[in-house]
Amino acid sequence: MKIALRTDVLTNNNKAAEFNRELFTDTKTLVINLMSSPGAGKTTLLEETVRELYGKYRIAVIEGDLATEKDADRIRAMGAKAVQINTHGGCHLDARMIAATLHEFDLDEVDILFIENVGNLVCPAGYDLGQHHKVAVLSVPEGNDKIPKYPQMFMRTELVLLNKIDLLPYLDFNVEEARRDLSEMNPQSSLLPLSARTREGLHEWFSWIEGAYERCIRL
Amino acid sequence: MKIALRTDVLTNNNKAAEFNRELFTDTKTLVINLMSSPGAGKTTLLEETVRELYGKYRIAVIEGDLATEKDADRIRAMGAKAVQINTHGGCHLDARMIAATLHEFDLDEVDILFIENVGNLVCPAGYDLGQHHKVAVLSVPEGNDKIPKYPQMFMRTELVLLNKIDLLPYLDFNVEEARRDLSEMNPQSSLLPLSARTREGLHEWFSWIEGAYERCIRL
Repeated sequence: MKIALRTDVLTNNNKAAEFNRELFTDTKTLVINLMSSPGAGKTTLLEETVRELYGKYRIAVIEGDLATEKDADRIRAMGAKAVQINTHGGCHLDARMIAATLHEFDLDEVDILFIENVGNLVCPAGYDLGQHHKVAVLSVPEGNDKIPKYPQMFMRTELVLLNKIDLLPYLDFNVEEARRDLSEMNPQSSLLPLSARTREGLHEWFSWIEGAYERCIRL
Repeated sequence: MKIALRTDVLTNNNKAAEFNRELFTDTKTLVINLMSSPGAGKTTLLEETVRELYGKYRIAVIEGDLATEKDADRIRAMGAKAVQINTHGGCHLDARMIAATLHEFDLDEVDILFIENVGNLVCPAGYDLGQHHKVAVLSVPEGNDKIPKYPQMFMRTELVLLNKIDLLPYLDFNVEEARRDLSEMNPQSSLLPLSARTREGLHEWFSWIEGAYERCIRL
């Protein structure tokens, strides 16, 4: 009974995800689903991404949180359109929430749509939103054990941004160990160390986005 | 239908939680449910707690994680008994998981049982495990916005340990703002700044545990 319901929920989610994906492809909108623990730095990373790329691409953001408009307000302050979804206790976004939000955008006028998922290293991993790419953010203060301890997340993401590397001198985080753990768990994935705060390593993230955009518009 | 099922799940959970709570009270075992984001430092805090209090109290730990025995191994290395629950994708412990684990302990021989929940700032908040106290750990690198953004967690905990204060010089975290946000959201709760790494502030945490234990054995 519980299994049947869960299957049903995921079937409905996957239908909505396919609807979203077709729309994104038709409008040539690159969509990136950004996931992490609370406080890993997703919003700061998006602020810096908007700051860098907004002149070149028309960027929009969907923000997912249990409560508050704080993250959407931070993105709006950078000049990009942002719509906040509040899940009121729900631990992840799903494809139907995204579908129900898309009327707020004119997708023909959006080149890149970032979806910042609810801060959670567990629930968002299981839900396809119709995005082209799933990207996880792991932060140095969270420690080296997160990749083996949260396999569902790291098995399903193609890029892991290791944020807050400016804190490496004060902590015991081993970047090579993280790279090894990730590559064992998910050989298709890669680890990109950076700091949204000091901007170290951000250039590689921006290049990755530009490459993904070029591939997207050729679909 | 979904609401009915959710109600049913919580009713079953609450029955198991009452079963656990009666058992804990009968055996005079103080039980603390420790919750936080991934990587906030729950296990390091428990290592230091076992190191300090193990001579005085018989301490045991239940560890909750999606995967691996890593956390239980760390506690065992400190000399205390630890049982690992793997949720295989589940984002929180529930009271039935705890009930199903209790046969592994002789509770008459345990003074304090810590339950380290799955690293997640959302799901664990809604599940009573039968504990006497719910304690949240928030870490400085997660940032000031977590209390308003995760209200379900902070409304339901009586003590919030603000961990990693050794990183305050390198980050913009405002301790007084966190104290104010917490007190507005939950006037019964208090914020205790500490660092499990440098041991600053740990003495107050140990005193809080000792006070809770004294109250527990008088129940």
